[in-house]
Amino acid sequence: MARKIILDCDPGHDDAIAMLLAHGNPDVELVAVTTVVGNQTLEKVTRNALSVARIADITGVPFAAGCPRPLVRTIETAPEIHGESGIDGPVLPEPTLDLDPRHAVDLIIDTVMAHEPGEITIVPTAGLTNIALAVRKEPRIAERVREVVLMGGGYHTGNWSPVAEFNIKIDPEAAHIVFNAGWPVTMVGLDLTHQALATPEVTRRIAEVGTRPAVFVGELLDFFGAAYREAQGFEHPPVHDPCAVAYVIDPSVMTVRKAPVDIELTGTLTLGMTVADFRAPAPADCRTQVAVDLDHERFWGLVVDALERIGDVPA
Amino acid sequence: MARKIILDCDPGHDDAIAMLLAHGNPDVELVAVTTVVGNQTLEKVTRNALSVARIADITGVPFAAGCPRPLVRTIETAPEIHGESGIDGPVLPEPTLDLDPRHAVDLIIDTVMAHEPGEITIVPTAGLTNIALAVRKEPRIAERVREVVLMGGGYHTGNWSPVAEFNIKIDPEAAHIVFNAGWPVTMVGLDLTHQALATPEVTRRIAEVGTRPAVFVGELLDFFGAAYREAQGFEHPPVHDPCAVAYVIDPSVMTVRKAPVDIELTGTLTLGMTVADFRAPAPADCRTQVAVDLDHERFWGLVVDALERIGDVPA
Amino acid sequence: MARKIILDCDPGHDDAIAMLLAHGNPDVELVAVTTVVGNQTLEKVTRNALSVARIADITGVPFAAGCPRPLVRTIETAPEIHGESGIDGPVLPEPTLDLDPRHAVDLIIDTVMAHEPGEITIVPTAGLTNIALAVRKEPRIAERVREVVLMGGGYHTGNWSPVAEFNIKIDPEAAHIVFNAGWPVTMVGLDLTHQALATPEVTRRIAEVGTRPAVFVGELLDFFGAAYREAQGFEHPPVHDPCAVAYVIDPSVMTVRKAPVDIELTGTLTLGMTVADFRAPAPADCRTQVAVDLDHERFWGLVVDALERIGDVPA
Amino acid sequence: MARKIILDCDPGHDDAIAMLLAHGNPDVELVAVTTVVGNQTLEKVTRNALSVARIADITGVPFAAGCPRPLVRTIETAPEIHGESGIDGPVLPEPTLDLDPRHAVDLIIDTVMAHEPGEITIVPTAGLTNIALAVRKEPRIAERVREVVLMGGGYHTGNWSPVAEFNIKIDPEAAHIVFNAGWPVTMVGLDLTHQALATPEVTRRIAEVGTRPAVFVGELLDFFGAAYREAQGFEHPPVHDPCAVAYVIDPSVMTVRKAPVDIELTGTLTLGMTVADFRAPAPADCRTQVAVDLDHERFWGLVVDALERIGDVPA
Repeated sequence: MARKIILDCDPGHDDAIAMLLAHGNPDVELVAVTTVVGNQTLEKVTRNALSVARIADITGVPFAAGCPRPLVRTIETAPEIHGESGIDGPVLPEPTLDLDPRHAVDLIIDTVMAHEPGEITIVPTAGLTNIALAVRKEPRIAERVREVVLMGGGYHTGNWSPVAEFNIKIDPEAAHIVFNAGWPVTMVGLDLTHQALATPEVTRRIAEVGTRPAVFVGELLDFFGAAYREAQGFEHPPVHDPCAVAYVIDPSVMTVRKAPVDIELTGTLTLGMTVADFRAPAPADCRTQVAVDLDHERFWGLVVDALERIGDVPA
Repeated sequence: MARKIILDCDPGHDDAIAMLLAHGNPDVELVAVTTVVGNQTLEKVTRNALSVARIADITGVPFAAGCPRPLVRTIETAPEIHGESGIDGPVLPEPTLDLDPRHAVDLIIDTVMAHEPGEITIVPTAGLTNIALAVRKEPRIAERVREVVLMGGGYHTGNWSPVAEFNIKIDPEAAHIVFNAGWPVTMVGLDLTHQALATPEVTRRIAEVGTRPAVFVGELLDFFGAAYREAQGFEHPPVHDPCAVAYVIDPSVMTVRKAPVDIELTGTLTLGMTVADFRAPAPADCRTQVAVDLDHERFWGLVVDALERIGDVPA
Repeated sequence: MARKIILDCDPGHDDAIAMLLAHGNPDVELVAVTTVVGNQTLEKVTRNALSVARIADITGVPFAAGCPRPLVRTIETAPEIHGESGIDGPVLPEPTLDLDPRHAVDLIIDTVMAHEPGEITIVPTAGLTNIALAVRKEPRIAERVREVVLMGGGYHTGNWSPVAEFNIKIDPEAAHIVFNAGWPVTMVGLDLTHQALATPEVTRRIAEVGTRPAVFVGELLDFFGAAYREAQGFEHPPVHDPCAVAYVIDPSVMTVRKAPVDIELTGTLTLGMTVADFRAPAPADCRTQVAVDLDHERFWGLVVDALERIGDVPA
Repeated sequence: MARKIILDCDPGHDDAIAMLLAHGNPDVELVAVTTVVGNQTLEKVTRNALSVARIADITGVPFAAGCPRPLVRTIETAPEIHGESGIDGPVLPEPTLDLDPRHAVDLIIDTVMAHEPGEITIVPTAGLTNIALAVRKEPRIAERVREVVLMGGGYHTGNWSPVAEFNIKIDPEAAHIVFNAGWPVTMVGLDLTHQALATPEVTRRIAEVGTRPAVFVGELLDFFGAAYREAQGFEHPPVHDPCAVAYVIDPSVMTVRKAPVDIELTGTLTLGMTVADFRAPAPADCRTQVAVDLDHERFWGLVVDALERIGDVPA
């Protein structure tokens, strides 16, 4: 049976690909999509999410907008990576879906509580503001959610500071809440996603799919690749967010390691670091694990396969 | 016209008196009562709020339960001041009111948004978790609320650390959110409330009212007085929370001073301190002020007057 | 018998007056003067100290230069209060004294160890870098020193931040070392020194002394008064540093209160705050006390008396 | 010409081996040995240093004791790794050398200032209290020292916390001073030293040397191996401190990478972390580098060779 997921995102080039992967793959089922400030403002990423839904013909799934700013910190966005629109590069179509009238936090809570315990997996690919607010407003979701598989952090890698990653650093208090909520957390961080490079071989395979969604992904990777070359010196761009979805689809796409992980909230140099303790085997009650090694071939195979399944989309 | 207030509280002996003051005084109107973990667990303080409503025959006002724990920190309660029940001392009647089905955060948001801009004043007398979540979930309330008049903090006085007060220290991140949300904030802190002592003269006047609510207040002050003598060396107990309500009723009951106030989140010795800057006159756009001097006679006059107006309550 | 003191200073207008007070008063004996970066660079304040020695004809006392920068933090000086020279205003004479070849840290250690236990009082009127280094290099001085009477900090008053004072904030780690070294510490902070105002009556009395040192003090106060009016809005300038010397001369010149005091090292808003705990009577083993109320008349009487005793100085 | 080094240490099993390596190898010359609290109290590690000198017949080199406690923090030692004596395991002979009367801080300063610029390399294998005090007391050594090659820290590895190493964490303020002093710093951290394992092959080769110093090293490794197995789960013990000496002897014994490194002073989870920034190529003025990969064979070859050169020592 397909794994039901809530995708909490801030599209965002790689968020868009994550959404397409989740939509196209038969082993996961998108039951809600929620948005949150991050790569760009809430307004922009929410519009982007709806545009991507149209590109992939995603229907019957509620989309809801969430928090326009982090819990405690001031807003930071990432225009140098994602452009002014949040998805610069492709021309995005006007959305045709209407937003769910609920706040993302309530949609998350309602969705989790309306399903059986263990049915819903939350997949955040953005700052954790919505998820933190949801579990604080309705603490019972911590026991009811199957697991949280998030893109964010990095045990030995940073991008928004020497040792912190963007999604965690923009709302470290939210991350602290999510990592300590008691549910199982799989951190798919930069250590893993810097292996998910969109090499020329990858972009070629995607181009060969030939559909409009695949062409869209090609355009995303063109812009993303140039931005990462310019901003962070990558030869090929790391495509972070679909990795978290891929892990839900098929955990064997990466190796993981159990380890206590917590979030640094007071460090001058280390604010928002995901501090993992590898000094000893994780204790039996450890609920956090980190992604270590990616099966590059299998991962991109999942993405290409999803694009093929989506097929060409009527205008 | 009576000022409409939402009382966000954690009864608590002095919260109970604050509720009675708000109910009995004709110049404020309780439009909602919300509860939050603080002096005791959410479950206990919520039951206490409903019991106090019965004691004062408060009807037609929605009561809603809010957050069972602070945003980031672990739970701290104050049994040494308020006992195991949260209102040790009096025997509390079984509640007769039903809770509103909404979460306190939603009741706060709905109430503010359903009224005209500038109509609703929020009066928190507890940790600020509910208020912080409300303004993060619905940022528009920051402009719509008339003001926030809160009991908490202290610019030169601490009780939960040398320089921090209980309501702020138990959820400093929430306090940081509330003090920086942009709405006007009046901090009625320990500097002021340590002047609101329930002297023998005060307890005598309350006893003379003679009604069941007044007897109840007498019992509250008996326990509270003993607890404060024991725990903090006070000869007569400071009755904090009604001071915030009193300021809404009649600002001339205390002097206030405009000053920038912010919350310390990383201090080893100063976590949760309300840092006020008195070095220069407050800038024109300063939205925070602190209470300085209490008119003790007028303050307790308001409390006695409210008890007289409530009258005796049918069982 | 005169109390032997080491004056550790960063002249500085008020440091200069502190030195004159110590030199002129018969109840204290200057046994060493050491300098440290603070109001201005080490080079400038050291030259100033020697110039002041010439103005007052101080001879037979070793002067030594100490640390040119704080322990951990980068250098901050106070030209807006003390000018570019550190003692702007008067024309300073060329020094005639030679510096002691030793580092201030070694002069402090040697002086303390060469005297009997309980003989030497250290009077810092600057950042605490030298004193901290001395007690870390030779821990035995902590037991041998009679007491440390320092100008710095403030339990309810800040000037270099809302809650921190200059001498402490420029080297908070040094202050942490000194306040926790185990010796008795009297903190003569801004709470006290903001009472030591050089009113027109004060400056008139000093002018009446008529000697060259007194004229010099008049010139210091002219510049200092204008700087404090401009920079911090004072009508008359607070003359901080001599207060610490005055306390050694005659403790009855101020009231003090025993209280635990520690230094905040990690606060975002409170770095360098001297956190005093007044919540309960100080424990029996408390080694720190804070100055509370100044006898303004007696204090300035000591200063005027010292100037009269110094007399006119041969060129 | 042999590189002149000051070895600042806290023997400690691996410090002892570092001292033997420095003494036995002809390409470095020990010009001073200083001790500091760390693995054990100052008294114990100082006695240990002198005993090791006797074992290896080190003469003509001044040994001086330094700081008995860290700058700001309270003392932490490591008896679980080094035992109660600091070098549990072997029976240590009574020292025959006398200590230099100077404080270690002054011996360091005097030694550096007495040599030409660029002549002296400082090799700390302990907490950095002495070195920090030296450069604060005499800032000119920062330009005069050739480089600081220290054992401590770890860019991706911790042992005294998830992300901090013992030598840095026991005095993080001192480490902050040393890493920011302006001299070239090579950090030989846990990332490197966890490769310097004393495998059975290694201990066999050392045993084959057969001299009394070599037997002593064998006894050190016996105890050290058991302690590391017990305390940190290592199959074979990492022999940290000689790695720093080996780098001075022959930099090709390890690869290094230039990167900005700074010390976290305020982190709750990350206090004392050596934060390295690998996000981009190090800037041209970067003065810090970290050790990455060890040539295990060559490293142990240096140790064995040094032991062979020391030869058997007369009692």
